[in-house]
Amino acid sequence: MTSQLQHKIDNKTKPLGSLGILEEIALQIGLVQNTLSPSLKNPTIIVFAGDHGIVDEGVSPFPKEVTMQMVMNFLQGGAAINVFCKQNDIKLLVADAGVDFDFEPSMPLIHAKIGKGTKNILKEPAMSGEECQKALSKGGEIIQKRSVGCNIIGFGEMGIGNTSSASLLMSRICQLPIEKCVGRGTGLDDEGLKNKISILKKALDKHPNATTPCEILATFGGFEIVMMAGAMLKAAELGMIIMVDGFIATSALISAHQFNKQILKNCIFCHQSDEQGHKLMLEYLKVNTLINLGMRLGEGTGAALAYPIIKAAISFLNEMASFESAGVSGKDE
Amino acid sequence: MTSQLQHKIDNKTKPLGSLGILEEIALQIGLVQNTLSPSLKNPTIIVFAGDHGIVDEGVSPFPKEVTMQMVMNFLQGGAAINVFCKQNDIKLLVADAGVDFDFEPSMPLIHAKIGKGTKNILKEPAMSGEECQKALSKGGEIIQKRSVGCNIIGFGEMGIGNTSSASLLMSRICQLPIEKCVGRGTGLDDEGLKNKISILKKALDKHPNATTPCEILATFGGFEIVMMAGAMLKAAELGMIIMVDGFIATSALISAHQFNKQILKNCIFCHQSDEQGHKLMLEYLKVNTLINLGMRLGEGTGAALAYPIIKAAISFLNEMASFESAGVSGKDE
Repeated sequence: MTSQLQHKIDNKTKPLGSLGILEEIALQIGLVQNTLSPSLKNPTIIVFAGDHGIVDEGVSPFPKEVTMQMVMNFLQGGAAINVFCKQNDIKLLVADAGVDFDFEPSMPLIHAKIGKGTKNILKEPAMSGEECQKALSKGGEIIQKRSVGCNIIGFGEMGIGNTSSASLLMSRICQLPIEKCVGRGTGLDDEGLKNKISILKKALDKHPNATTPCEILATFGGFEIVMMAGAMLKAAELGMIIMVDGFIATSALISAHQFNKQILKNCIFCHQSDEQGHKLMLEYLKVNTLINLGMRLGEGTGAALAYPIIKAAISFLNEMASFESAGVSGKDE
Repeated sequence: MTSQLQHKIDNKTKPLGSLGILEEIALQIGLVQNTLSPSLKNPTIIVFAGDHGIVDEGVSPFPKEVTMQMVMNFLQGGAAINVFCKQNDIKLLVADAGVDFDFEPSMPLIHAKIGKGTKNILKEPAMSGEECQKALSKGGEIIQKRSVGCNIIGFGEMGIGNTSSASLLMSRICQLPIEKCVGRGTGLDDEGLKNKISILKKALDKHPNATTPCEILATFGGFEIVMMAGAMLKAAELGMIIMVDGFIATSALISAHQFNKQILKNCIFCHQSDEQGHKLMLEYLKVNTLINLGMRLGEGTGAALAYPIIKAAISFLNEMASFESAGVSGKDE
């Protein structure tokens, strides 16, 4: 299939290789779907939301309530991810994985709350092993139930404090010192950043024995991150293309990757976040992103903005003329 | 207007600055249109086609006929630019600026032929001063007649041999040695590249006195490049946003820039070409591109692919909720 796809790509009316990364994406999706005519169906982004006990330590300049307020904003269509999904015809779903707020059951959310926020990692593991398993399964279940007919899915997140959780997961999984994994999140100043690093260092020291994939996730994860990891694993199992967003989403992916190394075949890394640790996570996975717009917002915005480029890769493969069909002369040999 | 626009951007429900380059684009377009609610109307890409006498020297691995054949391909909808414009709802126009072929007058082209290909620059100037003026005016005229109701326009090109013309323009305008301005074009091998450099060196030596903006354009330009430069100047004059594509389009832009330095205010540099000289042209102008997908195809493909990102900048500015309207708490101070 690889050589047949490459042949089809090379015979389009363009100089060899001149569509660059689009050609790699076309090949990748053709291989995942095992066809010379791949298609993208019902593109969807799910935003998982959850709260974080470690916010009590002052790791974020925004108050915890913003998680719940932003979920409301998603439901009202006012956030960046709403605007970008609408523009690019992407279906948007919002899941309450563990927000510290009681949403009305009638609200158009995926109600999947595992708990009302995680515990403070500085004092105890973020969640129990059982809660972690539950969040992983729930993520898979959401994919199975809510993405019928969809073969390309992106994941976003909202959770005040979740860059802390992502940095801890990254430090333990990639075995990098915490200083390299911590950034300014939503906008910490120098002192705030210093404080965040010192808190997260203590959090890592508190849990030296969390080393298996499950233990790492339960100890340092957030409900939205773990559920996203579960959703990614199921999406790969079902042969879907996974659009990986920024820093937090990639922390879920490196967690999922510990359970299934093959998951990378399904992943398209969309946007390189301005959050400093993201670059190192991408290096750890030996992957590159499609775009780099200097954003650091999360919510799945990088995936939503990269989607038209992914679509273009499929469009050129299916719709462009070949040298033969267009009667265009090839290169002189 | 700058501070009012910045205030509107900063009050959207997102951490300050977290939409990165999109925020810069929103500000730029707001300033060009002088409004807090900018809009993008009838996005259009015009592909200018022309032939080049210097092809006789063997600077391209493709035969000259490919220019005409690709114009036919554009008209039949089979080229990459057709596919990407269709996907992203961009109107596509094709102009014959100087192809060495007699197109039927009934063909849905902009018939603007200045001549049937340029002269061989190695022996004489590519065109006369009069032809150059005619091509510049014609470019402006096309904008005025064919882009009514459009406020964002991109330019593409097709012309076997036109990377040679672009390299010569770049070398003389940016005052860089030709080796730094020459790339593999549509796919030269090492020997072909060496040969191309040697030919272009001779071409520069042949015309030491071409130093004014007009002389440089007439001596080294192509009909499609000069017409594009004229179109860019008129588009800026009319307050349109100009989407600048890759290497050839940027060579037209640096030529236009010699006549009007203010043109940069209207320009969004879309895609950094894999053609090596492009990076240096961008450095000369002190600008960055939105995306870098490793493409080197021309036709306006980089502009067509970047358009949804530009659109997203306008969408967030117009459609996202503010902290106040969404009831979201701001950063703790």
